[in-house]
Amino acid sequence: MSGGSLTHLDETGAARMVDVSEKDVTRREAVATGNVTMRAETLEAILAGQIKKGDVFATARIAGIMAAKRTHDLIPLCHPLPVSSVKVEIEPDRNLPGLTVTATVGVDSKTGVEMEALTAASVACLTIYDMAKAVERGMVVGDIRLLAKSGGRSGDWQAGAAE
Amino acid sequence: MSGGSLTHLDETGAARMVDVSEKDVTRREAVATGNVTMRAETLEAILAGQIKKGDVFATARIAGIMAAKRTHDLIPLCHPLPVSSVKVEIEPDRNLPGLTVTATVGVDSKTGVEMEALTAASVACLTIYDMAKAVERGMVVGDIRLLAKSGGRSGDWQAGAAE
Amino acid sequence: MSGGSLTHLDETGAARMVDVSEKDVTRREAVATGNVTMRAETLEAILAGQIKKGDVFATARIAGIMAAKRTHDLIPLCHPLPVSSVKVEIEPDRNLPGLTVTATVGVDSKTGVEMEALTAASVACLTIYDMAKAVERGMVVGDIRLLAKSGGRSGDWQAGAAE
Amino acid sequence: MSGGSLTHLDETGAARMVDVSEKDVTRREAVATGNVTMRAETLEAILAGQIKKGDVFATARIAGIMAAKRTHDLIPLCHPLPVSSVKVEIEPDRNLPGLTVTATVGVDSKTGVEMEALTAASVACLTIYDMAKAVERGMVVGDIRLLAKSGGRSGDWQAGAAE
Amino acid sequence: MSGGSLTHLDETGAARMVDVSEKDVTRREAVATGNVTMRAETLEAILAGQIKKGDVFATARIAGIMAAKRTHDLIPLCHPLPVSSVKVEIEPDRNLPGLTVTATVGVDSKTGVEMEALTAASVACLTIYDMAKAVERGMVVGDIRLLAKSGGRSGDWQAGAAE
Amino acid sequence: MSGGSLTHLDETGAARMVDVSEKDVTRREAVATGNVTMRAETLEAILAGQIKKGDVFATARIAGIMAAKRTHDLIPLCHPLPVSSVKVEIEPDRNLPGLTVTATVGVDSKTGVEMEALTAASVACLTIYDMAKAVERGMVVGDIRLLAKSGGRSGDWQAGAAE
Repeated sequence: MSGGSLTHLDETGAARMVDVSEKDVTRREAVATGNVTMRAETLEAILAGQIKKGDVFATARIAGIMAAKRTHDLIPLCHPLPVSSVKVEIEPDRNLPGLTVTATVGVDSKTGVEMEALTAASVACLTIYDMAKAVERGMVVGDIRLLAKSGGRSGDWQAGAAE
Repeated sequence: MSGGSLTHLDETGAARMVDVSEKDVTRREAVATGNVTMRAETLEAILAGQIKKGDVFATARIAGIMAAKRTHDLIPLCHPLPVSSVKVEIEPDRNLPGLTVTATVGVDSKTGVEMEALTAASVACLTIYDMAKAVERGMVVGDIRLLAKSGGRSGDWQAGAAE
Repeated sequence: MSGGSLTHLDETGAARMVDVSEKDVTRREAVATGNVTMRAETLEAILAGQIKKGDVFATARIAGIMAAKRTHDLIPLCHPLPVSSVKVEIEPDRNLPGLTVTATVGVDSKTGVEMEALTAASVACLTIYDMAKAVERGMVVGDIRLLAKSGGRSGDWQAGAAE
Repeated sequence: MSGGSLTHLDETGAARMVDVSEKDVTRREAVATGNVTMRAETLEAILAGQIKKGDVFATARIAGIMAAKRTHDLIPLCHPLPVSSVKVEIEPDRNLPGLTVTATVGVDSKTGVEMEALTAASVACLTIYDMAKAVERGMVVGDIRLLAKSGGRSGDWQAGAAE
Repeated sequence: MSGGSLTHLDETGAARMVDVSEKDVTRREAVATGNVTMRAETLEAILAGQIKKGDVFATARIAGIMAAKRTHDLIPLCHPLPVSSVKVEIEPDRNLPGLTVTATVGVDSKTGVEMEALTAASVACLTIYDMAKAVERGMVVGDIRLLAKSGGRSGDWQAGAAE
Repeated sequence: MSGGSLTHLDETGAARMVDVSEKDVTRREAVATGNVTMRAETLEAILAGQIKKGDVFATARIAGIMAAKRTHDLIPLCHPLPVSSVKVEIEPDRNLPGLTVTATVGVDSKTGVEMEALTAASVACLTIYDMAKAVERGMVVGDIRLLAKSGGRSGDWQAGAAE
């Protein structure tokens, strides 16, 4: 009968927020990055402050910081964390061409802030898209990834090093 | 004096939510995509239902749908919209290797749902990362972009067609 | 191979917010109820205003009203709706003994407000529990159900009438 | 004069978030339950995966987990808590007939997670209702109550034992 | 008996979100203002961009815009509204000395946006305080009031004109 | 070139959530106040319970308490804090004439709760305005300021004492 097997499937596949209560409270930090690729003219329009919606840099930075604080409200199995620092940096890259976002999040907690850093970078990129989309709808958000994390039982991690 | 020039800068660069009240209420739809690139083994673990946190597909789909509804709460200058449909599809792609997310959002409104579709795709991708990060921290979220939009004054738009 | 069948399962079982764009905007209303069963002494303490946390009636009513507005943020596939009225009434019932909550929600929209009324009733009941739990932890929230709905394509509905 | 007596009433009845700063941070856990009673055919349709909106079990579980994290945002006098684990289990019960939800929440904190467990159970039940309401509007959410709690000054508590 | 009279009191004093369904959808606008009074040196430090937390103007403007969209989530009896435009302007006033905030909100809706404009102005002022409080804790937020509203059954209104 | 100078501006002016990880967890408390000035008749109508929307005192108190918990979600650079107590008191003042709000917030944390107390006072005042605005649109919210704070590295502070 289908009910029985479905229930069994549920038991093995059921989403749950894993228990972190046995982990130690330590200082943890995570750095994530992402970018928005666009036409050279769009980048120049942003850098010249010609975007009609307003200041792209300031708006994207604040959106990223606020998103970091809401990560547990967006990602279903993330733990709520009392983040102690959030920094979102945005740099133009004429080779891309586009903007590169770097988000750094710190916390003293039982679990890490990788998702907070990735969420901050993603939402800052989406905000850049929103600000400039009247100029170019074809912009692409990409390369959102963890650069480094420190603290916690699993120790430090650097992108590119063997896992 | 610095105050004067700063105020002037503010006047030209100040972020604001643009007025859409003169636009028509029409049926609008947007489709956005994104993907998570991972090792082949990580993809197989996901497809085999071996991720300890639970069902990756169901969790990411629901996270994407709920994020679409909160877009205006995340992206500072987005208008709140009564979205009338949201669909988030996730497909494995062994050539990537990884998972591809496609989000489709519909609304009857004065402004479009591009940001809602992009936000749904991004948050679904971030959720996939969160579910599987214990297996592979080096996964990359990328290629988040608009595929198509319809409705509204600016008419239909397809990625790849001339803007 | 497992991936194929999982994908197939996803196609049939994937959660999605159903499209309501073809439905008409009409005046819709829903009435839901629920109750909190408690010991007679607990009810008397509430009615006498002896609950240390403060006024149970006012707090539960406001919690219910605010929850109605957040229904789409709590229930994954609910559409965001511009509710036009919310009323939460709380009556003592010495036969229960306990408190009965009735929530009435109205909207002009393409879809109904059953979930808004049920969510308002549920959160009002949970708030009553929270206010009085220092007196009695064994209180039970129950009988949360739709009493009536009006408007929309499916027409009027009354609890107890044949569906 | 009415102002004076009203002010006096306020002083005694004013809602406030009680001070927990003097309580100890201890490991605390709470288990709550609830159920959705429905017709036997509705239960069979859910178990057979025939609900048009998608997977009832996965959607309700995730809704319950996310609601646990928002409890303090819904229940006016609840303290914000860094929940360290949330599990929502859903089982069919053909005798009911219907589905039974059990929510287990853990935290290391100065106050308990009874309301988080009750909120998770309630929202999971409401989500089940939402998913299946096109099949049966007369379903009833009921028997939402605390099964057990542990930790904290007041010690362990089991439903059914003398308070 | 106390229960009876309390219930009676509830019936007359119970908070409820009033029904606006009979009102017309019209273009409505509201303008609200507020200010933050501070020492002349604090104002100069803000204007010179010397505040360690970052750009006061950009941060406060974005906070005000985002708060306007959340008004119904903060003010218990406010209706959720699809605001169509939000503008937050901040000007230095050396006579105050301090900063003056003006928020303008537009909507096409059955009810007005006075509370949205007032909330935007208030949260922008609070954000200014937060940014500069390391320099001066004694700043005062004041004079938050409606300047004008237009649209709706009650017609136009200007502060200072007879009500 | 404009990009270079803009980037430089960003480096100095970029908003960021400052790092509090090196600060000690101590008991901290903050008291803030604010008021709503109105006509004498409006105050009498409020005190007589004649406001059509319902109980002004209870609604404003609960709105203030709930807003304190959301401060970090409203004020971009505020840290999320596990507030341990919130009290909102509202007193009539016939000399104003109007209502005076006092909010007291406590926490055990690495940073203070000044913004939480100010936000609670502001939102309680805005709620009073919302409840009574049908009677008088010209009410003014003002004098929102910190009265005192205790705890933390900077020690105690009292409004009026030299900073």
